[in-house]
Amino acid sequence: MRIYDIIYKKRMGKTLTKEEIEFAINGYMSGDVADYQISALLMAICFNSMNEQEIFYLTDAMMRSGDTVDLSRFGNLSVDKHSTGGVGDKTTLIVAPIVASLGCKVAKMSGRGLGHTGGTVDKLESLNGYRSSLSSNEFLGQVEKIGIAVTGQSGNFAPADKKLYALRDVTATVDSIPLIASSIMSKKLASGAHSIVLDVKCGSGAFMKNEADAKALASAMIDIGNKFGRRVRALITNMDVPLGNFVGNSLEVYEAVQVLSGMGEANLTELCISLASNIVSISLGVDIDKAREMVEDSISSGLALNKMKEWINAQGGDISPLNEPDLLLGAKFKKEYKAKSSGYISKINAECVGIASMLLGAGRAKKDDIIDYSAGIELKCCYSDYVNQGDTVCVLYTSNDSLFNACEKKLDEAFSLSEAKPESNTLIYDTL
Amino acid sequence: MRIYDIIYKKRMGKTLTKEEIEFAINGYMSGDVADYQISALLMAICFNSMNEQEIFYLTDAMMRSGDTVDLSRFGNLSVDKHSTGGVGDKTTLIVAPIVASLGCKVAKMSGRGLGHTGGTVDKLESLNGYRSSLSSNEFLGQVEKIGIAVTGQSGNFAPADKKLYALRDVTATVDSIPLIASSIMSKKLASGAHSIVLDVKCGSGAFMKNEADAKALASAMIDIGNKFGRRVRALITNMDVPLGNFVGNSLEVYEAVQVLSGMGEANLTELCISLASNIVSISLGVDIDKAREMVEDSISSGLALNKMKEWINAQGGDISPLNEPDLLLGAKFKKEYKAKSSGYISKINAECVGIASMLLGAGRAKKDDIIDYSAGIELKCCYSDYVNQGDTVCVLYTSNDSLFNACEKKLDEAFSLSEAKPESNTLIYDTL
Repeated sequence: MRIYDIIYKKRMGKTLTKEEIEFAINGYMSGDVADYQISALLMAICFNSMNEQEIFYLTDAMMRSGDTVDLSRFGNLSVDKHSTGGVGDKTTLIVAPIVASLGCKVAKMSGRGLGHTGGTVDKLESLNGYRSSLSSNEFLGQVEKIGIAVTGQSGNFAPADKKLYALRDVTATVDSIPLIASSIMSKKLASGAHSIVLDVKCGSGAFMKNEADAKALASAMIDIGNKFGRRVRALITNMDVPLGNFVGNSLEVYEAVQVLSGMGEANLTELCISLASNIVSISLGVDIDKAREMVEDSISSGLALNKMKEWINAQGGDISPLNEPDLLLGAKFKKEYKAKSSGYISKINAECVGIASMLLGAGRAKKDDIIDYSAGIELKCCYSDYVNQGDTVCVLYTSNDSLFNACEKKLDEAFSLSEAKPESNTLIYDTL
Repeated sequence: MRIYDIIYKKRMGKTLTKEEIEFAINGYMSGDVADYQISALLMAICFNSMNEQEIFYLTDAMMRSGDTVDLSRFGNLSVDKHSTGGVGDKTTLIVAPIVASLGCKVAKMSGRGLGHTGGTVDKLESLNGYRSSLSSNEFLGQVEKIGIAVTGQSGNFAPADKKLYALRDVTATVDSIPLIASSIMSKKLASGAHSIVLDVKCGSGAFMKNEADAKALASAMIDIGNKFGRRVRALITNMDVPLGNFVGNSLEVYEAVQVLSGMGEANLTELCISLASNIVSISLGVDIDKAREMVEDSISSGLALNKMKEWINAQGGDISPLNEPDLLLGAKFKKEYKAKSSGYISKINAECVGIASMLLGAGRAKKDDIIDYSAGIELKCCYSDYVNQGDTVCVLYTSNDSLFNACEKKLDEAFSLSEAKPESNTLIYDTL
């Protein structure tokens, strides 16, 4: 078998076999196949796509390139959620304790933030003492006992995906449905959950610019999961604005507590309830209306917030801020960012807000940067609100007041105002 | 400017600017752009092609990556010929003295053979004493004086093309019309001739499998040449069989002398006359019928053969074999290869014949192999001839009779026989 022939075959629009796909992936990992050959193959895939069977083989080869977690002891109850991340996405902090309070098993390894996006583990570490590194026994034992454990990634999950993604990132081959679907699913499958709910973002800021593409991606991922015997559901959601009103680590924990206390921002609350309802529905096998009722009860009864405290406590984190959330908004310096003119907020560029928050110390520009957990941005206005010149649009939080300037400059790019009230945004386009 | 954006732009089917194409090529040469990025760009070009303007910029950037020869002192008279080479292609040995005898100026740098294809310089070096390395002054002075000089490649012509070609060769991005056209033309333009005739092969053994593709390639190359102010004509020719009856270095010199003596094989003679007529037509500005008459006169009068002797003599080569051509067939060992069954010759696989000849010592498997100039293959039958079992199909020539065995094995693959007489082949499909 020669990689040349495999590249040429895909260039000609033919279907690759299991053996050919494995030859390419395994050869790339072993160094027998060069990166310039894989990038040519990736570009050919961008043009000629892959059918469901090829995507399955690709996902399987990437999944098997590294470690996998065995959650079979939890049967159908092990659950996972994937979202493309994005600015202000604290849904894991909210959805995980909700579904755990209803009997689902959340054994989750999460990433750290880089650039304008935050990471779940960083947010959790804003709580003093939180241990994001557990032994395998501790991790599974905690899931067994209280239904939830969230750590950083130990182990080496789908290293072929990491290597391929790094190459795609510099060769303009990122936005291809078979490549995105296999990338996401190889990691999800390696992490072992039986039931998976996917939050597929769609909009100008996402890889999938329109609903049709987002649905095609969702369908591809559902098909992969089903071929591996997993239950998968996907929500197609809007990602044109940041999620919720808070961006930054301890600020997002604050907002998670707000949602679990029934006082969260409407869109964020609705998205979390939808994600949680779908997880509960597929893992417990109840219909979606019943699942939603259970989820809403878990919040209103305080069960979900209690589960969050139980979880944080089990991992050594200080839960006093969960009882007194204002402690989470205790940055040394705060400053209001005001509207420079009047109008309806017609656009909030999530990436700009994410970078602005990073510039206050809340994120990492480089991998080794140290995070200021108290830093971040509170949005005081939402998309389509009317603001008058001089109104407070955001409050900026930081431990270092010399950073306000750069942040404010970036925020100037983030907001667009219009004279006419903009159309209201749909939050969830569809569920597949 | 970022290479990522350039790759993405081509992936999206947009037209690249001069600056973007130069950025990619110059960056690749300097090492600022990685090979895995260029291979992705090349694959995107394979799918989305390039328009005439982009091809022009690409050719220009590759041409300017290295040395160029200034032949302006010869005005419109400097001529060049390109053919994709192939097995038994000794057209340069024949066409160059013909057109030089009619006043054209042939300042040609030719390649050496590798694998199954031969090189013009190797063929010339089969004549004792032939100097294939001349100083620039000698080279141009000889062209000035006698109208012809043929050396090996000194100088560094279109190194960007060399580097790109090596990458295309391992990433299944060779057969793309814009990439082939710019590759050939960047070298032709660097070598400086004003009038260029291209022999574009077409058929199962060539890159261009059908006449339409071959014409598209020819048109692209003509357009490039014209944009650089050169006169270009292209012949679309058949390359399903070896060219002429002889393969191997001194054997091909023998056949060249035969053609120049009016006793050459019909197809080879016709192709050489057509190529020479077109060169004469565009460089001297005479119509094609007049040019053909001049070419035929040059052969029948002996002028062309005399010019060949003058040329070989000027470069130090022994011309006695040109006066007594049988000396060129003087290999130590000869062996007849006989038909194993009876039938019409329905296919002669040129590549197999080329490899068989190489196995006798006539070519190089690796770059540093030493050539046996006397080795090669004489075909005793042509395409569509009827042969009886036991008839002599070829005569094998070599200095080392232990090589016959491997050669014969390869020749077993080269010939196909059929019961019905195969359709006759067209030699020249079209002239553009």
